[in-house]
Amino acid sequence: MSSAAESLSALTGLIDSGGVRVIDLTQPLEESTPVISLPEQVGKNSPGFSKTVVSNFDADGPAWAWNALHMGEHCGTHFDSPNHWITGREHQTGGPATIPPEKFIAPAVVIDVSAKVAKDADYLMTVQDVLDFEAEHGRIEDGALVLMRTDWSKRTDPAAFLNDGHCPGPSVEVMKFLAEERQTRGFGVEQVGTDAGQAGMFDPPFPAHHYMHLKNRYGLASLTNLDQLPPKGAVVIAAPLKIVGGSGSPLRVLALAPAA
Amino acid sequence: MSSAAESLSALTGLIDSGGVRVIDLTQPLEESTPVISLPEQVGKNSPGFSKTVVSNFDADGPAWAWNALHMGEHCGTHFDSPNHWITGREHQTGGPATIPPEKFIAPAVVIDVSAKVAKDADYLMTVQDVLDFEAEHGRIEDGALVLMRTDWSKRTDPAAFLNDGHCPGPSVEVMKFLAEERQTRGFGVEQVGTDAGQAGMFDPPFPAHHYMHLKNRYGLASLTNLDQLPPKGAVVIAAPLKIVGGSGSPLRVLALAPAA
Repeated sequence: MSSAAESLSALTGLIDSGGVRVIDLTQPLEESTPVISLPEQVGKNSPGFSKTVVSNFDADGPAWAWNALHMGEHCGTHFDSPNHWITGREHQTGGPATIPPEKFIAPAVVIDVSAKVAKDADYLMTVQDVLDFEAEHGRIEDGALVLMRTDWSKRTDPAAFLNDGHCPGPSVEVMKFLAEERQTRGFGVEQVGTDAGQAGMFDPPFPAHHYMHLKNRYGLASLTNLDQLPPKGAVVIAAPLKIVGGSGSPLRVLALAPAA
Repeated sequence: MSSAAESLSALTGLIDSGGVRVIDLTQPLEESTPVISLPEQVGKNSPGFSKTVVSNFDADGPAWAWNALHMGEHCGTHFDSPNHWITGREHQTGGPATIPPEKFIAPAVVIDVSAKVAKDADYLMTVQDVLDFEAEHGRIEDGALVLMRTDWSKRTDPAAFLNDGHCPGPSVEVMKFLAEERQTRGFGVEQVGTDAGQAGMFDPPFPAHHYMHLKNRYGLASLTNLDQLPPKGAVVIAAPLKIVGGSGSPLRVLALAPAA
């Protein structure tokens, strides 16, 4: 066998044996799934998730059950395509359908700022947080997906999760750094969006969106179970729906990690 | 490093180097994406895909573009959860949200019946087709996802793809065999549904649904690019949206395969 064939065979064997864990980084998608709420003067809101029954083992379909779905593209655990933001509108103009599929599989770097967030719901991750991480775990490698661990996903009550717009996120400076000084693949968070709750007032506003999408990189929001990942060594699979001309989508995000 | 850590590191390295190809098995999701059409007396139809603009760099969202989505759960490239079918309704009653995530990553077995389908649009894959495959490539291993290659996905015109209900699929006997005699993970096809176009008249009707979901296994439909996969050796990643109480979902399906 080639080394590639051996590697793929080893992977499924390790998943079967439990040597590699498959961790679901996705929040359940249901009517109560929280979505971002914009003040009226900022913009129109995007709908949350809902479903309606088409049939349920009844006269409308005696042997089958299925539903119709309605939701915003940026609902629940979701993917931000570069063309979602004005700084990235020249990238991936066909939306998630045109992103090369190999971009959806990336080594993960998990930067844990949960202790700081526990003390300050508006905590902003800094360049120093990244440099401290690198001093301990090594430089962020090219192509890595940077995940900001806050333990915010443990807020299972939707009101506490949205927290009246007081949610942590990255500083302007750290997003500029991750976009310009590191060849990151993208940036993912546990909160409802990749930017902090108060980031509309930053300069530039919404720096995670501004800098990442400017550089043709993607975002992931409303992730969970980041506390089950090692700082380095996990691989994240985050493949959005193949929506032609879309700006992102809800998706199932999985991580592969060595058994602890 | 542990062997698991080495294996994961090798995987992303091989993707970067091109030694492992990431192949998109997903059809584009757009208004023209074909969906199954049931005769009125059979049941209610499920909607196709549509999207409406929430904002597009305009007064409704000056710096961002996003859409609202509407679609049936079984639309485009999609996942059939066991609870989609009456024979599987006791399995995964919480829908795709409750299936263990490691089930979504599986070694693929690709059985090529495209030459027979080219001669007969109603061709039904047989037990003999499977036995012939196994004689050449070895027994279908436990946990494998069986994919039926027909090249049907090359029919890019929606009318030719639906073909007035004349589409290939599996025979009753082969689905009973794959469900009972082999420990398959699931069954995937290029056509609009896992069963043949005329399978409503079989005994039992819709045998792919009947036998697979009875055994708590899943289905994948409207796949593409199966002609890019080796008969064995590829790994498929097919993770549906985490819909609580759903019956399936559109999804992005990726395959990892050794470079040819």
